Amino acid sequence: MLPKIWPTVLTLGWILAAIAVAQALMALVALGFNDGLAGDFATVATITGAVAGACVLTTKGRAFDLRFRDAALLTVVAWVVVPVFAALPFVDERIGLSPVEAYFEAVSGLTTTGATVMSGLDALPRSILLWRSTMQWIGGVGIIGLAIVILPFLRIGGLALFRLESSDSSDKTMPRLRSVAVTVVSIYVAMTVACFIAYWSFGMTVFDALNHAFTTVCTGGYSTHDMSFAAFDSAAIEWTAIVFMIGGALPFLAYIRLFRPLPLRQRVEPQVYTFLAILIVLSSVLVAWAMLSGGMPLSQAVTKAAFTVVAIVTTTGYASSDYVAWGSFAAMLVFLMSFLGGCSGSTTGGIKTFRFHILFAVALQHVRRIFHPHVISPLRYGDRVVDDEQAASVGTFLFLFLASFAALAIVLSLLGLDVDLALSAAIAAVGNIGPGVVPEIGPSGTYQDLPESVKILLPLAMIMGRLEIMSLLILFMPSFYR
Amino acid sequence: MLPKIWPTVLTLGWILAAIAVAQALMALVALGFNDGLAGDFATVATITGAVAGACVLTTKGRAFDLRFRDAALLTVVAWVVVPVFAALPFVDERIGLSPVEAYFEAVSGLTTTGATVMSGLDALPRSILLWRSTMQWIGGVGIIGLAIVILPFLRIGGLALFRLESSDSSDKTMPRLRSVAVTVVSIYVAMTVACFIAYWSFGMTVFDALNHAFTTVCTGGYSTHDMSFAAFDSAAIEWTAIVFMIGGALPFLAYIRLFRPLPLRQRVEPQVYTFLAILIVLSSVLVAWAMLSGGMPLSQAVTKAAFTVVAIVTTTGYASSDYVAWGSFAAMLVFLMSFLGGCSGSTTGGIKTFRFHILFAVALQHVRRIFHPHVISPLRYGDRVVDDEQAASVGTFLFLFLASFAALAIVLSLLGLDVDLALSAAIAAVGNIGPGVVPEIGPSGTYQDLPESVKILLPLAMIMGRLEIMSLLILFMPSFYR
Repeated sequence: MLPKIWPTVLTLGWILAAIAVAQALMALVALGFNDGLAGDFATVATITGAVAGACVLTTKGRAFDLRFRDAALLTVVAWVVVPVFAALPFVDERIGLSPVEAYFEAVSGLTTTGATVMSGLDALPRSILLWRSTMQWIGGVGIIGLAIVILPFLRIGGLALFRLESSDSSDKTMPRLRSVAVTVVSIYVAMTVACFIAYWSFGMTVFDALNHAFTTVCTGGYSTHDMSFAAFDSAAIEWTAIVFMIGGALPFLAYIRLFRPLPLRQRVEPQVYTFLAILIVLSSVLVAWAMLSGGMPLSQAVTKAAFTVVAIVTTTGYASSDYVAWGSFAAMLVFLMSFLGGCSGSTTGGIKTFRFHILFAVALQHVRRIFHPHVISPLRYGDRVVDDEQAASVGTFLFLFLASFAALAIVLSLLGLDVDLALSAAIAAVGNIGPGVVPEIGPSGTYQDLPESVKILLPLAMIMGRLEIMSLLILFMPSFYR
Repeated sequence: MLPKIWPTVLTLGWILAAIAVAQALMALVALGFNDGLAGDFATVATITGAVAGACVLTTKGRAFDLRFRDAALLTVVAWVVVPVFAALPFVDERIGLSPVEAYFEAVSGLTTTGATVMSGLDALPRSILLWRSTMQWIGGVGIIGLAIVILPFLRIGGLALFRLESSDSSDKTMPRLRSVAVTVVSIYVAMTVACFIAYWSFGMTVFDALNHAFTTVCTGGYSTHDMSFAAFDSAAIEWTAIVFMIGGALPFLAYIRLFRPLPLRQRVEPQVYTFLAILIVLSSVLVAWAMLSGGMPLSQAVTKAAFTVVAIVTTTGYASSDYVAWGSFAAMLVFLMSFLGGCSGSTTGGIKTFRFHILFAVALQHVRRIFHPHVISPLRYGDRVVDDEQAASVGTFLFLFLASFAALAIVLSLLGLDVDLALSAAIAAVGNIGPGVVPEIGPSGTYQDLPESVKILLPLAMIMGRLEIMSLLILFMPSFYR
């Protein structure tokens, strides 16, 4: 049974329509700021809108019936094709990006990676800056949908644990899914508004506050300043970012459960505790390092360390200080933190906390079983039982994620990058973080000086990481088409 | 039920007795070469022998009854304590090692890691060179015993797959174990003799041939020359090393099955095919790189590439050329190859081929199950069935191995090593390889200039890697003592 093409085309049409609307809004923004790009944005909105219309019209009259094989195809196609249209505004002589660079920037935006090939941000047209932030914000919605609906159904890497209770029986899922989607998007919007108000009240301009609110709650990391958060030099703003980056890295479904009349154990998922514990431990270590080795005063060390840890572990990638300059221990810590990621069902990338939670629990149980082979105690995750198949599935994910990272690092070194640059760029892309831990691509650098071949490869790696490797791999399995 | 101490003491006594005999033989060698260390070796042999005697005598009269809890304790104690006595000959003013360095060298030898803090090897007393090689050869025997008997019983990291058929029923295992042990040690000795003859006939001196035969079949990697195999500049010698390094990296139990009247499928384990395929693919890639980027002629490229790949993947660590100087692609490839390892039941370290074989098979099955959730086809490894628990156990091992690697890298960077040096030293130690991929500790470097604290930490990491992480961890579990 081949996957049907038309549900993919139809859904793609609706996504592109949304992109076209956003681009039309940017035309108005450009007009308002009189930054000279109004015509450009109007043109690209027309192109995107025309393609969107064509997609929707050619599939007109068919009842919407997205099966899961189609969903897998749609997922991959959407993440590859939509950035092409999102990239159009960057292909302008005043912006100066090549088509490859424009695609890089669009993929990095929509996957909320946040790696950039642009510099001199402070002097760029306002509408282009807002477009970058808007891409990340829209991407964030797509990622949550992917994380809550599609990946768990595909049973990717242990995510079957997080399937909505009713998502097995295909008939009654749509109304339930729609209600969940509305709630989750409402939370996302509310968080964005709250974040905007906080940034604004702590001294950001309205424009900066809007941009950073967009790129904070989606854990994206694009900024309007080359110096990122160092440009604001405000502890209050940094702590606002810390709070909302964490907000974006928590499981969005859990927000719904949080306010239900359930016992605490069912209201808060174990991965949330694990995630917060990881942040606290790593921040403490980095505070100690900043104070002992760099002689930083306590209050500054706490802010800078917490900001850095949260920015990396949530895979946002903001910078408020150049951790690369803090010495090899900080660089090593940031490099290895890049593998962690936030909670499942959030906008973060990486391996993700619940997998470490389960791997650790399985390891503990395994070591116990060595001496008590006949004691059978089922592994629990909150109120759910983790069976051996799910444990193996998490192990499989770890293997595939690291194998992808290793393969990418090898190819990057073949393309001429040094070992440390290749390793750092590989995890920054596959983990959807953005900046790396070597000066070239660190908080003070950009990806613009890397070879063109690298700029082609990295966006594919970002998409691969975003799709949790497996939903991309299944398209290459012959059994997918049988 | 606390583990009993005395079986550990008794077994330790017998191991130390073997070490004392070897040290006494070195005294004779020193006498023969008149290198001035005969007295030293006689003294340390006496000390080791006295402690061995004390261990055996205090436990005299007890029937030997080693239960598996005791075996776990013995394993760890033996790998920590025996190197203390093996290190004694290095603590001599003519050799010039500090006690910490001597312990480093002894652990690196007995675990067949092959990292060294000594240079000017060519000028060292002959008896000391032979002692280093002998340590590795003895260590190899211990590792095979560990890999065939103890680790599979402890069900470490999927090794339960390789349990001897009868090792569950504790009564009848000893005669069977003894016969297996005799066969395996005979194979090991026969391989050593064959390797010695080959080296000798291809032009090595008797002394060099003996030393390198000792350190080849145990995949150890100590040499008698600072330049390692580059000192011989002979393709025939390098290919001899390639053949016998592979010989040492194959599962020793499989040699027994190879000659039994069984179908081919049961005679050759799947991991052997996977292992050889990995070697061929990686060598081909490196040949292409050496020819295209370095302009090396084909025949030289094939020899150098195959030697490098086999030396690293088998975790031997010999060098016939400085791969660090081949550019960042070669360095990256060698770095990532360092994680692979050889077959289970061999003298190699690392993650090991059968685990990659199983992880890959599980991943493939998992992706298939996404679209055919109701098709249940048991995962097979040769003629054995791999159940979900074993698959999870392999995933757990991967997690613990990489977590140990990451933790070690973090501590090394805290001790002042650069990021790339810390990463390279961490895998070179935990993977029991020896040399790294940065110049300081690469084929042309040694570990002697690293800080003293690093020289204390790395031997512990070598032991941890050698014990496949888990058999060390279980000693820290409260349930071990209940």
